[in-house]
Amino acid sequence: MNIILVDKNDYTDDPDVVRIEGRRFIHIKKVLSPEKGNFLKCGEVDGLMGTAQVLSMHDNYVDLKVSFVDQPPKELRVQVIIALPRPIALKRILQNVTAMGVKRIFIINAERVEKSYWQSSVLENSSINNQLILGLEQARDTVLPELRLCRSFKLFVENDLPEIIKGTKAILAHPGSDKVLPSLFEGPKTIAIGPEGGFSEYEIEKLSGCGFDMISIGERILKTATAVTALIAKVSI
Amino acid sequence: MNIILVDKNDYTDDPDVVRIEGRRFIHIKKVLSPEKGNFLKCGEVDGLMGTAQVLSMHDNYVDLKVSFVDQPPKELRVQVIIALPRPIALKRILQNVTAMGVKRIFIINAERVEKSYWQSSVLENSSINNQLILGLEQARDTVLPELRLCRSFKLFVENDLPEIIKGTKAILAHPGSDKVLPSLFEGPKTIAIGPEGGFSEYEIEKLSGCGFDMISIGERILKTATAVTALIAKVSI
Repeated sequence: MNIILVDKNDYTDDPDVVRIEGRRFIHIKKVLSPEKGNFLKCGEVDGLMGTAQVLSMHDNYVDLKVSFVDQPPKELRVQVIIALPRPIALKRILQNVTAMGVKRIFIINAERVEKSYWQSSVLENSSINNQLILGLEQARDTVLPELRLCRSFKLFVENDLPEIIKGTKAILAHPGSDKVLPSLFEGPKTIAIGPEGGFSEYEIEKLSGCGFDMISIGERILKTATAVTALIAKVSI
Repeated sequence: MNIILVDKNDYTDDPDVVRIEGRRFIHIKKVLSPEKGNFLKCGEVDGLMGTAQVLSMHDNYVDLKVSFVDQPPKELRVQVIIALPRPIALKRILQNVTAMGVKRIFIINAERVEKSYWQSSVLENSSINNQLILGLEQARDTVLPELRLCRSFKLFVENDLPEIIKGTKAILAHPGSDKVLPSLFEGPKTIAIGPEGGFSEYEIEKLSGCGFDMISIGERILKTATAVTALIAKVSI
């Protein structure tokens, strides 16, 4: 946790004072263990960043006086489309993608996605939100990514995708492809990453038809989490 | 596990037949569940790749007839120097770096590395070897990376580093730096990644003195595992 993120529920009657309990309090107490008067890095979810001065430490909460004046880091101009991976992997992927600065994430279905994954509690709003917050806390950022779950590949590709990728360079990581990624692109990008085992031929055709360029990220088979990080870094850092 | 890796201890008296037990056997039985006569992807540690034909499945082992004719994927021409991270993170990093095709890994000390990390059982030979094997199995590769543990930053930098980076482009990811990585470099590279909190000023000076270029991978603070994957992808995929 490289920044304490507060939201509107944390505010006391004093508009400059927040009361922090639970997980964030434990981190402040055990890891930062500040003294009264010390300043901590702080930010407001979907708002500015700044400092929080410790007013008083208690057994189960801390009161902080906050002051937000700094802009959060610039967003990465890349949106990410990921075929739903194993739920345990999804948690880490959401954290990493958020930490890297991606602000638009689409989790989509594909032929080789195990149907049971869509039942996972990891896909519940509160669980997803937790992972995104963990990513922001890691990166020292405040702006939550927009995330959409798209349970039908066909509807997503036919109805939504053309609008989503408009004005972006759209790239699809595909093991079969001979094409190597040229280098850093200017401008906004969309990257798509298939399930373990890859997108099916039909899916590849649909995505190519929308304007996706297939590129290779090497001969080796990477875990989805590694491939996502590698591809984001490759096109936009 | 995208390839079954065998080593010399697996061979029976027949020079073409291996007997596989334990973890690999369980994977073959439960995930691949082949029938007699089926072919599996197989490779020899530090050797060639090819196929393994199922001769007979038993309760606790399987006998395979192996045939190795294919070269493993080309190595990535990048060597990686990582300040020892939290042991639990190190396991994943070793797997990922190996899966990406890196063949030379140096785990080094730094001022901001917690001393207790060096006592971890994760650093024992057998544990490290397990992680490297898991990386090869993921990537479908056979060649184990060379890995060295360097417990003294000073001795490493003064005695070994000049020889190690000779003929490579040496890059140091540093949060303070304004310099953005240009794009894909040709030729071999060395990348260095500091501990949580970064290398100390003294360490940065020593590395710069050896010829490392400092570059930024963005304003955000990334976990070591994410930063390593991102940087490898950035310079060499």
